[in-house]
Amino acid sequence: MRMRNSKDQNEVIESCDFLIKDPFVFKGKFKELFNNSNPIRLEIGIGKGRFIYQMALAYPNINFIGIEKFDNVMAKAIKTIAKRLPNLYLIKVDAQKLNEIFDHEIETIYLNFSDPWPKKRQNKRRLTHPNFLKVYDDLFEDKKHIVMKTDNIGLFADSLVYLSNYGYTLNDVSLDLDNKDIFNVKTEYEEKFEGKGFKINYLEATKD
Amino acid sequence: MRMRNSKDQNEVIESCDFLIKDPFVFKGKFKELFNNSNPIRLEIGIGKGRFIYQMALAYPNINFIGIEKFDNVMAKAIKTIAKRLPNLYLIKVDAQKLNEIFDHEIETIYLNFSDPWPKKRQNKRRLTHPNFLKVYDDLFEDKKHIVMKTDNIGLFADSLVYLSNYGYTLNDVSLDLDNKDIFNVKTEYEEKFEGKGFKINYLEATKD
Repeated sequence: MRMRNSKDQNEVIESCDFLIKDPFVFKGKFKELFNNSNPIRLEIGIGKGRFIYQMALAYPNINFIGIEKFDNVMAKAIKTIAKRLPNLYLIKVDAQKLNEIFDHEIETIYLNFSDPWPKKRQNKRRLTHPNFLKVYDDLFEDKKHIVMKTDNIGLFADSLVYLSNYGYTLNDVSLDLDNKDIFNVKTEYEEKFEGKGFKINYLEATKD
Repeated sequence: MRMRNSKDQNEVIESCDFLIKDPFVFKGKFKELFNNSNPIRLEIGIGKGRFIYQMALAYPNINFIGIEKFDNVMAKAIKTIAKRLPNLYLIKVDAQKLNEIFDHEIETIYLNFSDPWPKKRQNKRRLTHPNFLKVYDDLFEDKKHIVMKTDNIGLFADSLVYLSNYGYTLNDVSLDLDNKDIFNVKTEYEEKFEGKGFKINYLEATKD
């Protein structure tokens, strides 16, 4: 996500008490961090933070961890999270390193409006590219479970192919999420484009 | 496909020499009908016939059979096919009976702008519904191979789920076929909506 730097971003990140500074020490022990055995869901690329905050508010019996690699985005998300919740933590890290942090303890990965990387030579940076799906393999506790939203039809179409070829089964697909009858916490980005005729693509896929 | 009846439709169908009147007798022997061992591809629901005619012209080393159940649509398609081609036949039959006609001799099934049957209780009439995928199983010679185009996003999204859950792998997906760099024979319906902002959804899936 492209966003301007802010003067106080380092300070915001440093002083945040729900941002895990050294996540590597919790590898395999995240249930201990939350002090319960509730499922843990990741959002990779949290943007301005509304999705994961609203989800954590809506589902107190599910634990959420938001992953973000950019300082300026992370600082913005921290400001969105109006109050600390017992079931919500953030980690500032590149998604490529996620298997150094989690060891078979994640239930679901959310990918919301990820960078589409439309140029062929950059496709491998997409968060649904097989290179990343391989990283995710070792994160999941049991069944692998990915939920994705995007307005980018190129990314979405290719992601269907990536996931299918990697052995995921599509449980649910919509090419117009707004008109689907499911509970959907909208990201800031999603709401911005609402009513402008942009359609949101959605998929939910699992792999044994 | 909805279309007006025409006065001469029965006569057109009766007198057509590339419409197979009793297809059941060729079961397992369609290569003999074509008098070669080239692959045989089916289009189920041929509409006004342009797709299958243009494909047969473009690929003389592939055999094509067009399936259509409605008299008025079939008569219209026959008129579209300006000259008889050695690699093109038509059959007037309901898709549900296809496994009474073909026995492991088809390479590819094309589904172009099939009826979307949007109401839940009518979903089972969709040509990608598992009930039909089961019928298709016994048609394919080797690998199962389905190619689909539609402008209906509800049908398309659900078809991705149907196919994935039935064990098909998605090899290619596009949510904007016009901007994809592949050879694409347009149906009459497709061309009509071209340039009006309607996007054509495309998938190509296989199953071992």
